[in-house]
Amino acid sequence: MFKAVIGAEKLKDAIESISTLVDEARFKLTTDGITVRAVDPANVAMVSLDLAKDAFDSYEATEGELGIDLTKLNSIMEMADKSDNIELDLDETAHKLIVRMRGLSYTMSLLDPSSIRKEPKIPALDLPAHIVIRGEDLRRAVKAAEKVSDYMSMGVKGNIFFMEAEGDTDKVRLEMTKDQLIDLQAGEAKSLFSLDYLTDIAKIAGKAEEVTIDLGKDYPLKARFKIAQGHGEVSYMLAPRVESE
Amino acid sequence: MFKAVIGAEKLKDAIESISTLVDEARFKLTTDGITVRAVDPANVAMVSLDLAKDAFDSYEATEGELGIDLTKLNSIMEMADKSDNIELDLDETAHKLIVRMRGLSYTMSLLDPSSIRKEPKIPALDLPAHIVIRGEDLRRAVKAAEKVSDYMSMGVKGNIFFMEAEGDTDKVRLEMTKDQLIDLQAGEAKSLFSLDYLTDIAKIAGKAEEVTIDLGKDYPLKARFKIAQGHGEVSYMLAPRVESE
Amino acid sequence: MFKAVIGAEKLKDAIESISTLVDEARFKLTTDGITVRAVDPANVAMVSLDLAKDAFDSYEATEGELGIDLTKLNSIMEMADKSDNIELDLDETAHKLIVRMRGLSYTMSLLDPSSIRKEPKIPALDLPAHIVIRGEDLRRAVKAAEKVSDYMSMGVKGNIFFMEAEGDTDKVRLEMTKDQLIDLQAGEAKSLFSLDYLTDIAKIAGKAEEVTIDLGKDYPLKARFKIAQGHGEVSYMLAPRVESE
Repeated sequence: MFKAVIGAEKLKDAIESISTLVDEARFKLTTDGITVRAVDPANVAMVSLDLAKDAFDSYEATEGELGIDLTKLNSIMEMADKSDNIELDLDETAHKLIVRMRGLSYTMSLLDPSSIRKEPKIPALDLPAHIVIRGEDLRRAVKAAEKVSDYMSMGVKGNIFFMEAEGDTDKVRLEMTKDQLIDLQAGEAKSLFSLDYLTDIAKIAGKAEEVTIDLGKDYPLKARFKIAQGHGEVSYMLAPRVESE
Repeated sequence: MFKAVIGAEKLKDAIESISTLVDEARFKLTTDGITVRAVDPANVAMVSLDLAKDAFDSYEATEGELGIDLTKLNSIMEMADKSDNIELDLDETAHKLIVRMRGLSYTMSLLDPSSIRKEPKIPALDLPAHIVIRGEDLRRAVKAAEKVSDYMSMGVKGNIFFMEAEGDTDKVRLEMTKDQLIDLQAGEAKSLFSLDYLTDIAKIAGKAEEVTIDLGKDYPLKARFKIAQGHGEVSYMLAPRVESE
Repeated sequence: MFKAVIGAEKLKDAIESISTLVDEARFKLTTDGITVRAVDPANVAMVSLDLAKDAFDSYEATEGELGIDLTKLNSIMEMADKSDNIELDLDETAHKLIVRMRGLSYTMSLLDPSSIRKEPKIPALDLPAHIVIRGEDLRRAVKAAEKVSDYMSMGVKGNIFFMEAEGDTDKVRLEMTKDQLIDLQAGEAKSLFSLDYLTDIAKIAGKAEEVTIDLGKDYPLKARFKIAQGHGEVSYMLAPRVESE
């Protein structure tokens, strides 16, 4: 059983945070809210979304799992205005989700959750460096890096957080001190990441007021931020580039 | 003889209402205004435009017929600002229409009206259901229907006007009661229409405050609305989809 | 030695005025400012840019020459907001230009100036007709001409400045009298120009308050206007179309 109402913009943001990595996902329903964990097909990046019951105007659910075609759901959300309220209603017998907005109802077939691949276990990581950066600054650095390379290194050296990309002839570097950031807990860290993924992540994270990034030396990056006016949290984990090529 | 001045936006809207169905059309001039009737090449939809003399800032014409290349006239109108006044001047001997706007004059060759195919006779129809809907609501329903199918049914059942499209797995349905509409005269009606055509019609009708739709059971749809600040009327007739396939 | 700070919009406009004709250019540095002269690969059009020291917030330079990849510099400038200050810093030993904006530094390799082709000598021309026109009016006429032809004639006849393009069936003509222009010094003139080039030039000149155009009979056109809030000047010379084909 699932029946909920949520502001269109909050739902859009939540869906996009996952659809940037995968086309289909399992939405886990509990009485407290919705949880999604998904890993991209290449096993390089993982997203975790928690949308609390409070993010909804009304929310009723029993434990369950919905297999969602995110491309389709994104396309449905395009029909909504930012200020619309979206009504979600599960038709369990027909295996369909009814999405209603201003008189319009869209009946969407659900996917069989067991046909959607499971996320692998993620090892617990102890990452020494912690950065809190404005989403917009992260996005800007990533866009700049794309101009010169397909990879970007991120790290902390002394009291400086840096992002750097190097091409054959040109180089882009952003350096931020603690007072240009929202917060910085120093710790030696430097890893190289694929801009394919960072671009997608930064596009979503770029809308957030603040993004918390955890880094290590040749370790995965963790980035997390709030969505849905604080009632949801998105976190990404991105594997570093394996040195070689 | 034809010499007239009209606001750019009014002329643009009038031309687009026809060019959405055909590339060339005969403009019938009378002392009272301009009339255009055109049928799309597949004989599925017909448009009828009446632009009264009052829609013009100045208007002088003798009876006549102009063969207009609508693609070209649209492209000329792109050069005009919304607030521009467009001067139209017929050069009968050279068989050209001179379109002037802010110092710029565009001399456009006319087509031989007899080379443009005539509209067929349209049978008089007695359609039982009448709906008056906001243009914007019509457009929204049509856009939603496109997500799932190439066809859309429209009808009235009891006191409900509905638009519905069904795809292989998903379904879109809009229901509007009399008080969500501007007006509704009930009457059993349901017909299936091609979204190819409805999309084009809804794009134009979507700008209108109110659109009057007449429907029957497997009968053509009639949609009409005002343009040019009430001094013009556009009406479309759209054949229902022949049941088969 | 070169170290300067300039508003992003001024720098963008300056670069675009050259990049519309060529992909690479030599920037001549003097203690008074920067000068660029470039000819397009087909030898049809030449641009000359003078950006005075005053256009910069700070400016220090010794005599020198920088080989600039304009496509790349344009792409770097896309990252800047209109209101950003751009810091330019020459690393002479590494042969690189460092472009800084809000914490971000972009290290761009310079080209060997000797590898960029030199501009040919331009003969001194005595052009009899002089027109001062609003940039916007020039751009509008050029856009209209594109609708009907690949070429456009410009000229002065009596006290009328005209621009005209003729296609197989249609014709566009703009006529402006002295009082519709900013200024006009009459003199018989008429030449035919390629719209490929006029379009590019008018795109840049279209932003200028006023554009001074010098014309002759089958002679090149000269168009010049201010940029960077009056602290820079751009001038184009465009060869007329050779009569034949």
